Amino acid sequence: MVEVEKYREHFLKYMNEKVDLKEPKNLYEPILYILNLGGKRLRPILTLLATDAFEGDVEKALDAALAIEIFHNFSLVHDDIMDDAPLRRGKDTVHEKWDINTGILSGDAMLINAYQLFENYDSDTFKQLAQLFTKTAIEVCEGQQYDVDYEESDLVSIPEYLQMIKYKTAVLVGAALQMGAIIANASKKDEQLIYDFGCNLGLAFQLQDDYLDVFGNPETFGKQIGGDIIENKKTFLYLKSLELLDQDESEQLKHLYSISPLNPAQKIETVRGLFVKSGAAGLAKQEIEKYTSTALKHLQDLEMKPEKKQRFTTFANDLMTRNV
Amino acid sequence: MVEVEKYREHFLKYMNEKVDLKEPKNLYEPILYILNLGGKRLRPILTLLATDAFEGDVEKALDAALAIEIFHNFSLVHDDIMDDAPLRRGKDTVHEKWDINTGILSGDAMLINAYQLFENYDSDTFKQLAQLFTKTAIEVCEGQQYDVDYEESDLVSIPEYLQMIKYKTAVLVGAALQMGAIIANASKKDEQLIYDFGCNLGLAFQLQDDYLDVFGNPETFGKQIGGDIIENKKTFLYLKSLELLDQDESEQLKHLYSISPLNPAQKIETVRGLFVKSGAAGLAKQEIEKYTSTALKHLQDLEMKPEKKQRFTTFANDLMTRNV
Repeated sequence: MVEVEKYREHFLKYMNEKVDLKEPKNLYEPILYILNLGGKRLRPILTLLATDAFEGDVEKALDAALAIEIFHNFSLVHDDIMDDAPLRRGKDTVHEKWDINTGILSGDAMLINAYQLFENYDSDTFKQLAQLFTKTAIEVCEGQQYDVDYEESDLVSIPEYLQMIKYKTAVLVGAALQMGAIIANASKKDEQLIYDFGCNLGLAFQLQDDYLDVFGNPETFGKQIGGDIIENKKTFLYLKSLELLDQDESEQLKHLYSISPLNPAQKIETVRGLFVKSGAAGLAKQEIEKYTSTALKHLQDLEMKPEKKQRFTTFANDLMTRNV
Repeated sequence: MVEVEKYREHFLKYMNEKVDLKEPKNLYEPILYILNLGGKRLRPILTLLATDAFEGDVEKALDAALAIEIFHNFSLVHDDIMDDAPLRRGKDTVHEKWDINTGILSGDAMLINAYQLFENYDSDTFKQLAQLFTKTAIEVCEGQQYDVDYEESDLVSIPEYLQMIKYKTAVLVGAALQMGAIIANASKKDEQLIYDFGCNLGLAFQLQDDYLDVFGNPETFGKQIGGDIIENKKTFLYLKSLELLDQDESEQLKHLYSISPLNPAQKIETVRGLFVKSGAAGLAKQEIEKYTSTALKHLQDLEMKPEKKQRFTTFANDLMTRNV
């Protein structure tokens, strides 16, 4: 989509102007590093798209878009420490390139910097943006905590899992869009609708990501197929399979999720078979479709010029076919 | 001082009502733990005192006071991880009682919670408070980074050191007072004066803390005398001594700050002697007096009822004689 490309360039130009290397260098260098590691910048692009769609001034949305991107990267830096992840987008993570202390402190500064970016807005807009940001940021922290908790737990229900991925990833997509609406002075009703569109789309995307991790095309998915199975990650497919399989197969699946064989090919193959046989794979596809169509339904209810609305439909379809 | 005790109780009652154990427990339990470890609560008390002194409603200052206290504790949790500190106020630190990941994530949530507490104020007050908070929080992070950097560096100047302790500890005292002034709708001039009073008092206090760590009375100081020398902490006394001592004695001091003897009594004694002989000890006392009197001068310039102003004078004197 042409607009997405245009807004990505616009955003990157602004980010490069705005984020510079201040003193103390050891605090700000890691921030520049993580922000320049790449990424599709979908969240800030959604903020700009939303402001434009509600007939607002895109220039005025750049600070909020940057706040969203900096917050997203803050959460990556701190999560990578917690997950002990060596790589991010194929490069060293911040705590790997520097150290854990640097990751903690630079992350803290990014979280504060994100709030600072709202200061160019008038008091009322500032408060609306900061309040939505705070609610979202708390949810992201809670989502990360649930994720940690569920790793240790054998009793995670599907609603709990959906709540966790909603908090961990979907609410920020909703907030990015709602911020764009706030800046354009959209109605409260439309603010809510565009937020709900984003949340549902974010959920659909995350569920699809888990699905493709098991059943995706190795040539196009970008990540190693079976990675979640190797790491014994409890996704929708796993939890739903445990619900649906008979006791023997359920025990077999639990056993497979308790081992880490050096050559995981056989484990991946067996687990994949159980995900299909249980019906979980089919149900996952249904869930993905359900959230996608709920997202699009919220979009239909919006007061917005048809050509602008069409952009979001295209964006959603491109996202779900992984073409964005 | 009677008011301090009254405000401390008032604040603690409010904090206990307001901060409760939500889900996920593993995120919020450490927050309750650190907030209930004790401490003198001087920063939130200063916010309440300032609102009252500028004829504002103390009830309205409670949320800002709590934000300051939560932020202060956030910085303790993350700093304790970075310093690898096992104890805080004689109890396990958060990352020791739980783990580093818990310390990181609960700290993040506290930083966000602090912003959330400003939401009960009208938009204009909200923006003023959040903006002052952000500026201060960034400075605290930068101060922490300079502290880390200076530990590794042999070339720290006295102005650099003073800037570091100003950012790391003094600005939050100034901000606590200024927030009280903002809530009471004080003039911009008075806001600045009370901020400067707090900053200078904070600096005087920190310099005195470093001084007492070496020359204090073991019965009343509360911490182990000589602790900074044992840890080779580069304080004003150390840096000034290096400036003033002749080359031989300067080398001797540097050498002593490169070793960690099992029995440090002799090292402490020799270093203490060098701090006195160099003249650094005397100059430190002068600096402490200079910042204290600058603080009190800013106080004199304030528009405030004399009896309210007297409270701050008493507070400052009590603080500097360690009776508060």
